[in-house]
Amino acid sequence: MTAESSLAVLGARPRFSELLPVGQFYWPAWEQFEEATRGIFSRRYYTSQRVAGPLVVELQRRLQEFLGVKHAIVVRNAANGLMIATHTLGLGGRVIVPSWAPISVVQSLARSKCRPVFCDIDPQSQQMSSASVRRLLERGGIQGILGVHLWGNALPVFELEALAQEFGVALYYDASHAFGCRVNDRAIGNFGRAEVFSFHQTNILSTGEGGCIVTNDDALASKFVAMRGDHVSGGGVALQSATSRMSEIQAAVGLAMLVDFERNRRNNAEQRKSYEERLRPIAGIRILNPSSAALSNLQNLVGVVDHAVFGMTRDELLNVLRAENVAAGRDFHPASHRISPYSEGMADAHEPLHDTELAAESTFQLPIGARVTIDHIEQICDVIHQAHIHCASKRSAPTPAVAT
Amino acid sequence: MTAESSLAVLGARPRFSELLPVGQFYWPAWEQFEEATRGIFSRRYYTSQRVAGPLVVELQRRLQEFLGVKHAIVVRNAANGLMIATHTLGLGGRVIVPSWAPISVVQSLARSKCRPVFCDIDPQSQQMSSASVRRLLERGGIQGILGVHLWGNALPVFELEALAQEFGVALYYDASHAFGCRVNDRAIGNFGRAEVFSFHQTNILSTGEGGCIVTNDDALASKFVAMRGDHVSGGGVALQSATSRMSEIQAAVGLAMLVDFERNRRNNAEQRKSYEERLRPIAGIRILNPSSAALSNLQNLVGVVDHAVFGMTRDELLNVLRAENVAAGRDFHPASHRISPYSEGMADAHEPLHDTELAAESTFQLPIGARVTIDHIEQICDVIHQAHIHCASKRSAPTPAVAT
Repeated sequence: MTAESSLAVLGARPRFSELLPVGQFYWPAWEQFEEATRGIFSRRYYTSQRVAGPLVVELQRRLQEFLGVKHAIVVRNAANGLMIATHTLGLGGRVIVPSWAPISVVQSLARSKCRPVFCDIDPQSQQMSSASVRRLLERGGIQGILGVHLWGNALPVFELEALAQEFGVALYYDASHAFGCRVNDRAIGNFGRAEVFSFHQTNILSTGEGGCIVTNDDALASKFVAMRGDHVSGGGVALQSATSRMSEIQAAVGLAMLVDFERNRRNNAEQRKSYEERLRPIAGIRILNPSSAALSNLQNLVGVVDHAVFGMTRDELLNVLRAENVAAGRDFHPASHRISPYSEGMADAHEPLHDTELAAESTFQLPIGARVTIDHIEQICDVIHQAHIHCASKRSAPTPAVAT
Repeated sequence: MTAESSLAVLGARPRFSELLPVGQFYWPAWEQFEEATRGIFSRRYYTSQRVAGPLVVELQRRLQEFLGVKHAIVVRNAANGLMIATHTLGLGGRVIVPSWAPISVVQSLARSKCRPVFCDIDPQSQQMSSASVRRLLERGGIQGILGVHLWGNALPVFELEALAQEFGVALYYDASHAFGCRVNDRAIGNFGRAEVFSFHQTNILSTGEGGCIVTNDDALASKFVAMRGDHVSGGGVALQSATSRMSEIQAAVGLAMLVDFERNRRNNAEQRKSYEERLRPIAGIRILNPSSAALSNLQNLVGVVDHAVFGMTRDELLNVLRAENVAAGRDFHPASHRISPYSEGMADAHEPLHDTELAAESTFQLPIGARVTIDHIEQICDVIHQAHIHCASKRSAPTPAVAT
């Protein structure tokens, strides 16, 4: 059997019979789920109605403890949480945000008529660059900074805090990828005016659909609660509402997942170790290291292809993996500033986005989490290895090889 | 024991030791819930991720069958569904809506910068009055009509359809209270451009949190799907997204509730019969009859107090009931046009709202559904009866009685 014949893209049988998706996909065991949800059936109270349900209240209390933060307000999802935060902070102008971020983060600004001003990233960590943020702030006209902690890593929070103070702008964060991560001895959730987590199935703590806004600011917290809830808060005034309630079942799942957090993080760590051991020897592949976080949830396995060294572009590699039924991702391609309407003047003049452009062409994500085994990881790394060998052999051949 | 002494408001022990809330609160039995959710655990797929999850797809198919409608698109809640519908219909101007409706319905217009123009209601049915709608249309400048089927009843859909055609305006509906109701042989869900259901715990079909947009228009349906979903629909264009996904557990609950629908409707019918028998003899209390619907889900038990005859105002009666731990409601008080910002010029010049004002002062809701027994109903009706007797005795007394 030749190296080529073991790749599905060259005609072999795919390594996986079912699509292996990117995402954490952790979930309580059935028994745990039953225990968590049984009480709901006896109470016959299934979601918030004017006031938050008992499990929602309990989940918020436990999240506050876990994160060491004063207020946790669970919401239906992170995009909605960011929208609530943006509105409540009173933003309605130009807000700095990385182009290298989920487009949903950028779009959350639109509801409050904010215009994104895109900053570039640090090429090593791919986190937003505080140098780039500073240059944008120096131009003036900025109301706020929406930081995005990417991929289990943490932003340079102290530098950003100092910049926000120096220029007198609001700083808040999308922390969808960073639940349970820490900077020094503080959990993500304690930085800026507010931070927003996502509890989508792709993240380490999932409620199926869900999210959470956290803050240490009492006044902000009560505004978040008002905007999440039912429409009339009393006194004959209809507040802007995001109807962003979380149901009791979702809260029950969240409570169970919180108990499992450390076990799931350790599972990520083992899988990551296995990936690193197998991918490190392959020239032209670099795995991002969430080293700005003192503790990472390790929920994302993100790599960068140097195609001149590896012998194949990122998109070619993804085709090879997809042929094997590995749904490897190329988030975020195209980067936000290349997506309409932001590519067509909706975004204000931004920084040169050289490192964002490079990242968008070279970055890929591999599956890690509950649906992945060490055997899967061996297979995936072997596919990447075979692809590399195949390309190397083609290039060293006297005449160009023809794929059959 | 005198009549007075059996009322908590006069010092007796409350009839109910726990608060009895208004709302349907139906839910699957545990065994049914387990059967519906077990598959989710084996698939390890918990919510929509780029595409809708398998149970969401199945629920949509079953809703389409049940309602006889081409497209059912489940969403996170009705307020969000209405916002999606308003945006997708391209509305951005003056929309006729009843003031006598949940404020969330009126507020869903704000996201698309629509201004509500309030119409009055029919005093008998309390549904929006098509005569009032016609008068507003004749003034001109109207883009759409957002009808609200209230309390298991149906609007005069054929009259409204004719008006919408005559004046060339978009007609769509909030059908939060009307799941499973029919007009002639057609289910609610088949009228106007689109209709939106709520699956909140207060309604007959609940998923805890949830809702559904239905339409027979293929082009609208695909726009609804795009706006519900993830942010980028491909081609480098970021559509406006409402991130309105429904999780797989919610869909599992919805599938089980659909099976239970007829049983729950019959339970409502029995409870309603019990209420009617006991309340009919009480002078000054009228129970609304959802008689415009050929079939009603009977999910709401709504009454009107004629205080001159009954001897007590609606608010006085509610105080009596609340003292007994019956959380009887006075939706919708105040009516939407009395709520800021609509009371302060946010709403355009509207109809005289005489019947809305009367309804807001006299209407009350009593508990009906899963948390209610026939014994509860006997107790509640007895309280209302005692309150009536107490007032009558006070008024027939030669000198005004003093409550002690």
